[in-house]
Amino acid sequence: MVDMGRWQPDALGRLERAAFELYAQRGYEQTTVTEIAERAGVTERTFFRYFADKREVLFSGSSHLVDIAVEAVSEAPASMAPIDAVGAALEAGARVLQLDREHATRRQLLIDANPSLQERELLKMTTLSTAIAGALRDRGVGSAYAEIAAAAGSALFAISFRRWISPGESRDYPQIVRDSLLELKTVAAGRS
Amino acid sequence: MVDMGRWQPDALGRLERAAFELYAQRGYEQTTVTEIAERAGVTERTFFRYFADKREVLFSGSSHLVDIAVEAVSEAPASMAPIDAVGAALEAGARVLQLDREHATRRQLLIDANPSLQERELLKMTTLSTAIAGALRDRGVGSAYAEIAAAAGSALFAISFRRWISPGESRDYPQIVRDSLLELKTVAAGRS
Repeated sequence: MVDMGRWQPDALGRLERAAFELYAQRGYEQTTVTEIAERAGVTERTFFRYFADKREVLFSGSSHLVDIAVEAVSEAPASMAPIDAVGAALEAGARVLQLDREHATRRQLLIDANPSLQERELLKMTTLSTAIAGALRDRGVGSAYAEIAAAAGSALFAISFRRWISPGESRDYPQIVRDSLLELKTVAAGRS
Repeated sequence: MVDMGRWQPDALGRLERAAFELYAQRGYEQTTVTEIAERAGVTERTFFRYFADKREVLFSGSSHLVDIAVEAVSEAPASMAPIDAVGAALEAGARVLQLDREHATRRQLLIDANPSLQERELLKMTTLSTAIAGALRDRGVGSAYAEIAAAAGSALFAISFRRWISPGESRDYPQIVRDSLLELKTVAAGRS
């Protein structure tokens, strides 16, 4: 654990808020770590205690998301089909993101506008898919099936996310994940 | 059509070969357009007739791949299930890439080693997925099903590609695509 000191409570939260404000106001590329630290009222050294660079501020929740997904696969009943264990993992992830739709939306707009962020987001999704495939193999699912189920699940998670943040969408994110999984099962069964 | 002139037959092919040689020898980042043109025996101006920049040399076949996939979906029998029309599109694409496994492998090694190429590769896969979804909608497939089928198909195409170029794999690329599609259908049906 990092000792934040009494004089700077919630430095992490303040840095994240400051970064998002600056990215929205000046653009991601134009914002510097110096400016983020200044707005958050901390030193640059404090910034680097939490983040490797300004890009990582947008990905601080990624490893948490992966942990939650892996845990959901591991804790799914042994009798549950692999694809439904993947569904449970995606739903668990969706429940976390669901907590702040506005934040998730603003984050996605930033990513869409910056190629270097898209590359990092791609790595995040690959990491998620690889972790879910590993958790499936730990349940005894064959390697090829685990890889396919996890990759299809990741694609579905990304599509569901886009649907969730699109204007006019009224369903919550976990519900969209459930609906999309049903659509995947339907098309894969040769129907639509 | 570009007039290549009698004095520089197959400038395109020579530029591609020169670029791949230099990327392999010096690294992608270190290679300049000037060097590529020089090795190919053409002017820089000729390079820019064919490619917007040195990155695009690696993606010259992308639009052809998309065309082939879309055509396969469009020409699939009306009675064919959407997922199998996607399978036909991926197989058609695999048959083209199949023509030169060594080239495909070297290209992938370059992409894996360079983040800016990964980003472009991601765009290529998104473009492919979007085009296949559009071709499915043109067949009357509902928008949500078309999106899910195309995204699952793209994920499957990428996984199949990795399997195809991995050492020890003996199946050809179209066969791996067929096998992977069967695996997707199996896991989506709750089996594995």
